[in-house]
Amino acid sequence: MLEPFAVKPIGVVRNSLTAPRTGFWEGLESTIVVQDRWASALDGLEGFSHIFVIYWMHLISENLRATTTHVHPRGDHRIPLQGVFATRSPVRPNPIGLRVVALLERRGNVLRVRGLDAIDGTPVLDLKPYLFYYDGVAESTVPDWAQKPARGPEEGEQRQES
Amino acid sequence: MLEPFAVKPIGVVRNSLTAPRTGFWEGLESTIVVQDRWASALDGLEGFSHIFVIYWMHLISENLRATTTHVHPRGDHRIPLQGVFATRSPVRPNPIGLRVVALLERRGNVLRVRGLDAIDGTPVLDLKPYLFYYDGVAESTVPDWAQKPARGPEEGEQRQES
Repeated sequence: MLEPFAVKPIGVVRNSLTAPRTGFWEGLESTIVVQDRWASALDGLEGFSHIFVIYWMHLISENLRATTTHVHPRGDHRIPLQGVFATRSPVRPNPIGLRVVALLERRGNVLRVRGLDAIDGTPVLDLKPYLFYYDGVAESTVPDWAQKPARGPEEGEQRQES
Repeated sequence: MLEPFAVKPIGVVRNSLTAPRTGFWEGLESTIVVQDRWASALDGLEGFSHIFVIYWMHLISENLRATTTHVHPRGDHRIPLQGVFATRSPVRPNPIGLRVVALLERRGNVLRVRGLDAIDGTPVLDLKPYLFYYDGVAESTVPDWAQKPARGPEEGEQRQES
């Protein structure tokens, strides 16, 4: 039951970023180049304004993620250590990234998106339509340390913070 | 770059459901039993009212997901076929499920949650805190066929629909 599974990338991220950075992803445009064999599986996705991109943060070493249980959120040492599952840190047992992005265009097997917090070459595992009535929970609450920062980096995925 | 990756389940879902069903997940309580080695990585998660559960829909056969590019959303044949990436169908290249759930309690390595659309024995790959300022996009739009159904099954993950 707890044996590993094989996930096969269905595409790759292309953008101008060659190294992770902290925040400032919101305006970044990326393309997602889906494998030809899955191009038709995108049919209809262009009807949605926003989609989830599920990706694999491939730069996180297996040793680091196998041994890290706690991090300082946002790399901010003023915030007490939290378990990695209580953060959006890229350092986690399975380095799966999740981000809602604006879908700007689909052309064949290529999506153009805005706001993806992943660097060039990141493998993409899955794409899902974003349904606010299903994925939006306005009444959700977070602890004080996780309130939206008034300034500074957003709470992004692919950063160096552990 | 498009080589497979090994994902290792970090826990397992426990609830009363032994087979997938269509909808009616909202009130379902489940527990997520996290492996002992990752119990401390949950520290701080209890401060969030809602979390994302990312899981592996292990009942979907590899043959089916390798050959299915289109499905009728919600298994409703009145809705035209859509590419699997434009739906939340469990039949997709990587059968990764994603659901926001209410976190009711954390006790050691066990989480009690409400609303998870996964059956007993489902492997869990990752847990993330839900941040509405980051994950909630109220202005998102969907095509007509994906509007919230006035009645009938919710748009859930682990169903039989292809």
